[in-house]
Amino acid sequence: MILITGASSGLGAAVAKQYAEQGHALLLTGRSQERLQKTLASCRLAAPEFADNNTCIQSLSCELSQDESVEQLIEKIHEMEADGQMLAKVIHCAGSGYFGELEKQQPQAIRELIDNNVTSSIMLLQQLVMHFKHKPIKLVVVMSTAALSGKAGETTYCAAKWAVRGFVESLRLELKGLPMKLIAVYPGGMDTGFWPTSGKHVDTSSFMSADEAATMLIQALPATEHGYVADLTIQRG
Amino acid sequence: MILITGASSGLGAAVAKQYAEQGHALLLTGRSQERLQKTLASCRLAAPEFADNNTCIQSLSCELSQDESVEQLIEKIHEMEADGQMLAKVIHCAGSGYFGELEKQQPQAIRELIDNNVTSSIMLLQQLVMHFKHKPIKLVVVMSTAALSGKAGETTYCAAKWAVRGFVESLRLELKGLPMKLIAVYPGGMDTGFWPTSGKHVDTSSFMSADEAATMLIQALPATEHGYVADLTIQRG
Amino acid sequence: MILITGASSGLGAAVAKQYAEQGHALLLTGRSQERLQKTLASCRLAAPEFADNNTCIQSLSCELSQDESVEQLIEKIHEMEADGQMLAKVIHCAGSGYFGELEKQQPQAIRELIDNNVTSSIMLLQQLVMHFKHKPIKLVVVMSTAALSGKAGETTYCAAKWAVRGFVESLRLELKGLPMKLIAVYPGGMDTGFWPTSGKHVDTSSFMSADEAATMLIQALPATEHGYVADLTIQRG
Amino acid sequence: MILITGASSGLGAAVAKQYAEQGHALLLTGRSQERLQKTLASCRLAAPEFADNNTCIQSLSCELSQDESVEQLIEKIHEMEADGQMLAKVIHCAGSGYFGELEKQQPQAIRELIDNNVTSSIMLLQQLVMHFKHKPIKLVVVMSTAALSGKAGETTYCAAKWAVRGFVESLRLELKGLPMKLIAVYPGGMDTGFWPTSGKHVDTSSFMSADEAATMLIQALPATEHGYVADLTIQRG
Repeated sequence: MILITGASSGLGAAVAKQYAEQGHALLLTGRSQERLQKTLASCRLAAPEFADNNTCIQSLSCELSQDESVEQLIEKIHEMEADGQMLAKVIHCAGSGYFGELEKQQPQAIRELIDNNVTSSIMLLQQLVMHFKHKPIKLVVVMSTAALSGKAGETTYCAAKWAVRGFVESLRLELKGLPMKLIAVYPGGMDTGFWPTSGKHVDTSSFMSADEAATMLIQALPATEHGYVADLTIQRG
Repeated sequence: MILITGASSGLGAAVAKQYAEQGHALLLTGRSQERLQKTLASCRLAAPEFADNNTCIQSLSCELSQDESVEQLIEKIHEMEADGQMLAKVIHCAGSGYFGELEKQQPQAIRELIDNNVTSSIMLLQQLVMHFKHKPIKLVVVMSTAALSGKAGETTYCAAKWAVRGFVESLRLELKGLPMKLIAVYPGGMDTGFWPTSGKHVDTSSFMSADEAATMLIQALPATEHGYVADLTIQRG
Repeated sequence: MILITGASSGLGAAVAKQYAEQGHALLLTGRSQERLQKTLASCRLAAPEFADNNTCIQSLSCELSQDESVEQLIEKIHEMEADGQMLAKVIHCAGSGYFGELEKQQPQAIRELIDNNVTSSIMLLQQLVMHFKHKPIKLVVVMSTAALSGKAGETTYCAAKWAVRGFVESLRLELKGLPMKLIAVYPGGMDTGFWPTSGKHVDTSSFMSADEAATMLIQALPATEHGYVADLTIQRG
Repeated sequence: MILITGASSGLGAAVAKQYAEQGHALLLTGRSQERLQKTLASCRLAAPEFADNNTCIQSLSCELSQDESVEQLIEKIHEMEADGQMLAKVIHCAGSGYFGELEKQQPQAIRELIDNNVTSSIMLLQQLVMHFKHKPIKLVVVMSTAALSGKAGETTYCAAKWAVRGFVESLRLELKGLPMKLIAVYPGGMDTGFWPTSGKHVDTSSFMSADEAATMLIQALPATEHGYVADLTIQRG
């Protein structure tokens, strides 16, 4: 079973649908119950007939920066495992964007940005490590190329994404020798619903779609017996 | 005038005292009113006789992650500037540490770590940029070598410090062409009060003292007409 | 048509054979004419029957650090293009290793290491850029995780690999807006013939094989209309 | 005694002169015997009267990429040490620049660039490590901000500088626990004789002078008992 966070839109939703088409059992999370239901429905539609979609593809609305919410998620995973769907992979896409000149950013929106990207990633990964570190699970953490270099107009977004990268790099060292593996994915700008609401005006016509990024992400992940893709940058162009 | 945050202990207190000895006007901030008073007193004692220490060396207890607290600080700076002490430099040392295996960390303590290091740095620098970006002020942001690479046992601390680095790298690009300059300082492990309370057991006997780090930091900062030290790593050994 | 350098052994040979099995036209280069013939023969054997293997799969022994050798290679590409096999992709695997404590390394062997990794990469990429930069060709530069961090016992090898990384990062900026794309691949330790001759004693039993790394590399490369995988780290484990 | 390489011009010559003024014994090296003599003369003039300049300030013309040349240099150091001038610090400034679009660069000039920056640094540091690693010597390796990021128009120069950085980062790990310390210095663009001959047209009027960079470098280096400045970026502005 594959857990996909941030599945209510964008890359998370696209990854969910493609995995559904491939016949994978899925657990989808997102903050918006309503949009999450839409992804859920389209995944169940996309899944091959042989799949018992109502039990194989499930969703849970989550606020990953909240402890109780993450605990409910872990419980849900345990339930699905009890039903025979063992957790094999996590695609952690949850996150939000906030852009524009630093001077014009709102303190409250900055706090939410940090919560939605940094605190949530730490809380989720902490619980996953606690419960599953002895299993050969791939934790795929989707960040952004904003995690790799500084960018004007993205000061706080870069702060949030660099935080996640530093966290992932450190956690890798802490998990050394364990079967659980951390995979870092850095996509460049995608043409998703992300931009209109982000406070940055960008011409996204040449950007890759979330579907394209999902395709590349999914095809790059399959591991071999002694190796795996650990870091992946996906660029437009 | 030099603003020093995190002046109530450690590197911040050491930097404050050395600048006081050199006769600089100072504004000291820290979270603990009590410890801040101790630094203030020792700075006033250390200052040369010609300095009118009561007006030249002042303090303000601050919670930099809180908007109102940062606004009070900006007001205080304006007051000192009105008295003729123009802001020339900021040594931003405020921050806190939290260490140990990820699984054993407490959610609430993680949130405080992020507040004390990430949110506070963003809130402070946002206000400083808004009010002083057209002046040739040096903003010295003191991080840690934990901002430069991942470290087992420091997952959330690295997250916090990488966030600040990503923020500083981005803000530099946003300030391009302006007289305000950002200076990034990465000290390695110091023998300060930091460790006993940080949850990590470390033999600090060969560590440099906060005084030593302060000495190197201060002597490395003086700029020339067309250039300045922009990044500085200070290691023990 | 796919050009594969360093095809006489290791990852290059494995990539060649897998692409041959998929029915791709190939041009293989390597320094050792003898070993190159072995790869060539096994590729022709592996190719599907529909392929006219004698013309579709060809080889040229090359010393990529030598101008004339690279010029001959470019001519050979033009010949194959004249026969209808257009260059679509380059997998640049050529390189050599040299390890051990710095004090024990031989000056001549250090020069060869630099020639085989740095000079050769620059000379090859310079000519490819000159002749093909206006075509949508993917230049895949295979380095090593030694290009990503410093390593004791690999001082000169890291120097060579970091050089290639710095070169690729710069060339990307220079090619901005052109259809030619640079892809950087960083594989971790593989169990190839590389180690016994490299001066470093390593237990490679848990290492991935060159075949495994080739499989992951090939499956990660396919691009979409508006995007492509630009950086790829492949780790053992 | 302080060994300064690349002392015949630019930053090396400026560092030499300032150390001479401070009364330090010096050994200066450079490729051009003629220009080296000019630096030597100006250093002897600048040295305070108490210094016996003819024996305290010496020079040796060197081609550091050549083994014999580096061996002669080591011999010369031993001679000066026999006269009581113990090696305390090395400021390795030697290097050369070559810029412009990759397509327009000449293969022979690229090879020289690699020799002058990469091979020379490796050969020099190898010998210094072999002979002095058990002494508390500071090896200051002066690179460039081109070692820190990719730059269009500087593809081969970045390759050369990244190589040195990768080498230094690795050698640090290899020297761990030894008293010899490596210090990495990354100066941004200086207004030296470097640019007119480098093939890149740049307006250097706002650049810092070599003298300014030398001043900041020298003032940032003094270490304390348990710590030292390990990395230093010097920017113009």
